[in-house]
Amino acid sequence: MGDKYVILDGKTMPATAPQAQKKTRLEALQSVFDSGTLQQTARLLNALTPSEIAHFLESLPLAERQLVWELIPPDKEGEVLVELSDEVRDDLIQDMDGQQIVAAVTDLPIDDLADLVQDLPESLSREVIASLDSQHLHRLKAVLSYPEDTAGGLMNTDTVTVRPEVTLDVVLRYLRLLSERVPPSTDTLFVVNRDDKYLGALSLAALVTHDPEDTVAEVMSLDLKPIPANWEARKVAERFEQHDLLSAPVVDDEGRLLGRITVDDVLDLVREEGEHQFMGQAGLSEEEDMFAPVLDSAKRRAVWLGVNLGTAFLASWVISLFEDVLQQYVALAVLMPIVASMGGIAGSQTLTLTIRGIALGQLNASNSRWLILKELAVGAINSLIWAAVVATIAGIWLKDVNIAGLIGVAMTVNLVLAALAGAVLPLILHHLRIDPALAGGVILTTVTDIVGFFAFLGLAKLFLM
Amino acid sequence: MGDKYVILDGKTMPATAPQAQKKTRLEALQSVFDSGTLQQTARLLNALTPSEIAHFLESLPLAERQLVWELIPPDKEGEVLVELSDEVRDDLIQDMDGQQIVAAVTDLPIDDLADLVQDLPESLSREVIASLDSQHLHRLKAVLSYPEDTAGGLMNTDTVTVRPEVTLDVVLRYLRLLSERVPPSTDTLFVVNRDDKYLGALSLAALVTHDPEDTVAEVMSLDLKPIPANWEARKVAERFEQHDLLSAPVVDDEGRLLGRITVDDVLDLVREEGEHQFMGQAGLSEEEDMFAPVLDSAKRRAVWLGVNLGTAFLASWVISLFEDVLQQYVALAVLMPIVASMGGIAGSQTLTLTIRGIALGQLNASNSRWLILKELAVGAINSLIWAAVVATIAGIWLKDVNIAGLIGVAMTVNLVLAALAGAVLPLILHHLRIDPALAGGVILTTVTDIVGFFAFLGLAKLFLM
Repeated sequence: MGDKYVILDGKTMPATAPQAQKKTRLEALQSVFDSGTLQQTARLLNALTPSEIAHFLESLPLAERQLVWELIPPDKEGEVLVELSDEVRDDLIQDMDGQQIVAAVTDLPIDDLADLVQDLPESLSREVIASLDSQHLHRLKAVLSYPEDTAGGLMNTDTVTVRPEVTLDVVLRYLRLLSERVPPSTDTLFVVNRDDKYLGALSLAALVTHDPEDTVAEVMSLDLKPIPANWEARKVAERFEQHDLLSAPVVDDEGRLLGRITVDDVLDLVREEGEHQFMGQAGLSEEEDMFAPVLDSAKRRAVWLGVNLGTAFLASWVISLFEDVLQQYVALAVLMPIVASMGGIAGSQTLTLTIRGIALGQLNASNSRWLILKELAVGAINSLIWAAVVATIAGIWLKDVNIAGLIGVAMTVNLVLAALAGAVLPLILHHLRIDPALAGGVILTTVTDIVGFFAFLGLAKLFLM
Repeated sequence: MGDKYVILDGKTMPATAPQAQKKTRLEALQSVFDSGTLQQTARLLNALTPSEIAHFLESLPLAERQLVWELIPPDKEGEVLVELSDEVRDDLIQDMDGQQIVAAVTDLPIDDLADLVQDLPESLSREVIASLDSQHLHRLKAVLSYPEDTAGGLMNTDTVTVRPEVTLDVVLRYLRLLSERVPPSTDTLFVVNRDDKYLGALSLAALVTHDPEDTVAEVMSLDLKPIPANWEARKVAERFEQHDLLSAPVVDDEGRLLGRITVDDVLDLVREEGEHQFMGQAGLSEEEDMFAPVLDSAKRRAVWLGVNLGTAFLASWVISLFEDVLQQYVALAVLMPIVASMGGIAGSQTLTLTIRGIALGQLNASNSRWLILKELAVGAINSLIWAAVVATIAGIWLKDVNIAGLIGVAMTVNLVLAALAGAVLPLILHHLRIDPALAGGVILTTVTDIVGFFAFLGLAKLFLM
């Protein structure tokens, strides 16, 4: 089975053509695991990258996950832990003793170690820190001194630096001397002066295409601007995306080189940001484990249901204000969900667009006024169209012109207000430093429910009674 | 103003410390543009990368966007077009004549050109193709022969290849000869045999850290597996994320090297995938232009509102079946939105979790049964808790034990069914090749509305009348 995925056997030709690859290594692992041969599973696991193993673990129900975890070679445990989502990781760490954890994590790169140490229970993180030599400890402290979601918290300290005055030939000899110690995915060397201040970047591509007699200063690029350590992660991702970077230097307030950020971490960031927006709308965390224990899941979900229940009762209370008119015109009860739900849909379209604009950093003071006006115009057009449609259908169905007219007016009011709320709400929440992806939807539907019921039933009371 | 952003002046020290950088170049551009000095805006634009210009254009309302577009230097127009979202790009292309477009796009890398050509009106794309020399045409055809969202459609043909039998010293001399012609962001050379079959990868890092007398075959890595050209884009992104790749070779069915995919394109892919999930829930496309003309926006949104209106009328129809009992017990009308809305919330939590599992490729036949059972258990626990809470509050509020009991039972039924629908629905949709991120939410709330109203009002009719 395993042979199928060995494209290159020694230095000869592919044993099988690539179309045989259609089943990925992970899929192969899954089917071997399902067939119950643990030994073969262990062998396949050994051939996976830590990230692939993490992906596989996340897709396993709890009991099987524990089983597979024990098959993972100890020297890979640390890297796998780093790649797991927080929830799955915490779950697995609970069953490890201190010694096991120290053994698993001490060889990790500093940025990964920093991530893990912050998630460990305090006694364990003390144990891990005590096991570090002074150089590692010093570096770890540098990374830990910045919040996790800043450039400083994201960086690794494994940079290769060179001086501007040396020749490329000297750099090449230096690299051969370092050999295996050149950190993985090094694409660029950073040029610093005696005070460790960042001066520029020397890409390996530039290094190998220029005359070895040239000096670093002559060849280095000044285009790769350093990233201040206190930049938000979101801004770091933007820089990488807009400049097609593979790695970037991180500097302190004085411009001294602290470390580097690599694109693989940025890729994880962008993935998490997308999941955060998507999952946040349902009140879920992007770290949510698909196979979390039932009671843990139920507890977390309950909070969100409770918040929504509060808003639902608010809507009920609005309806209860109009019991008298509902009693007389039961058709109002039949139609009232339409007004509220159409308002919710229209509002969430504007809300979604605005949240994305904020997340991309594309909304600012000068253009958000434009956006609000445009969304109001769109809301007005659609409210008139759909109010007319709903009024017509309701009129034909219920044979009541008055109620048809009322629902038309109520829908117009609600859809325009929904557009306004959808555009303004995330801007306000963002300003108050409340995450609009998490809170926006709940508040919006509360507004559209209340306005919808109030408008429809209130107008009915005013004109029918 | 511009000076603030020049960290490195010639080869001397930073003129200003990096904290001055807190205002990014884009923010600076925005404030200069707002103050109305077009000449200075043009100067700042010139210093931006095409991706930064695209980002800025997307954040401008239509009239201003047109103004800024005309300030962009012609040699950057093509690259900026590539970076824009489809909608904004189409809008700008409409005002360009054929000659302008040909001039803008002919120097683009093949993968970017392929993207653009597919989006141009046919007469224009013919004009562009006619302007290409035979080598470029040949390469473009290779990329265009694969669907846009496959590895073949994503790849660029600008690979640097070497033979296994030559020494590193020969490779180094070859690269110096190529010099400027080494494509940007080259981190790895691909090793091929005489038939162009992919054999392995030689990273620049390996090239510069090994003895120049070694042969390529001795130093090259066999770990970088080639990606078959027909792989889906999603799978390509997964491979990059799980192996921390900077670039990867793309091969045909016979293992011949066709081109390479670079991580910057994968970063864009992951960004778009996240936006697709997030925006899809509101029936929006990830290409949606925040400042699209009002009529265009209104038209697109109307479709989604229409779909939802259909489902809202379905819910109304269910309610209308119980007019008699509503007339007698108006408290039912007050409480009925609670049953429906709590079902919708609970269901969309499960739905969101399942959609993410599918998107990450973490759900398969063997574990989806587990997920459904787990979600049913979570749904059962939460339905009992919240049914009890709602029944208690309703009982105290409305002083009616019967209605309190009824809403409790109705909520239990609806929340359990919501969990089932939330877990099963996306699996079915995915199986039918319907995008669950787009259709899942609408169908789910239709189910929870109908079940909720049916259970609550139906039970009331059964027991109260």
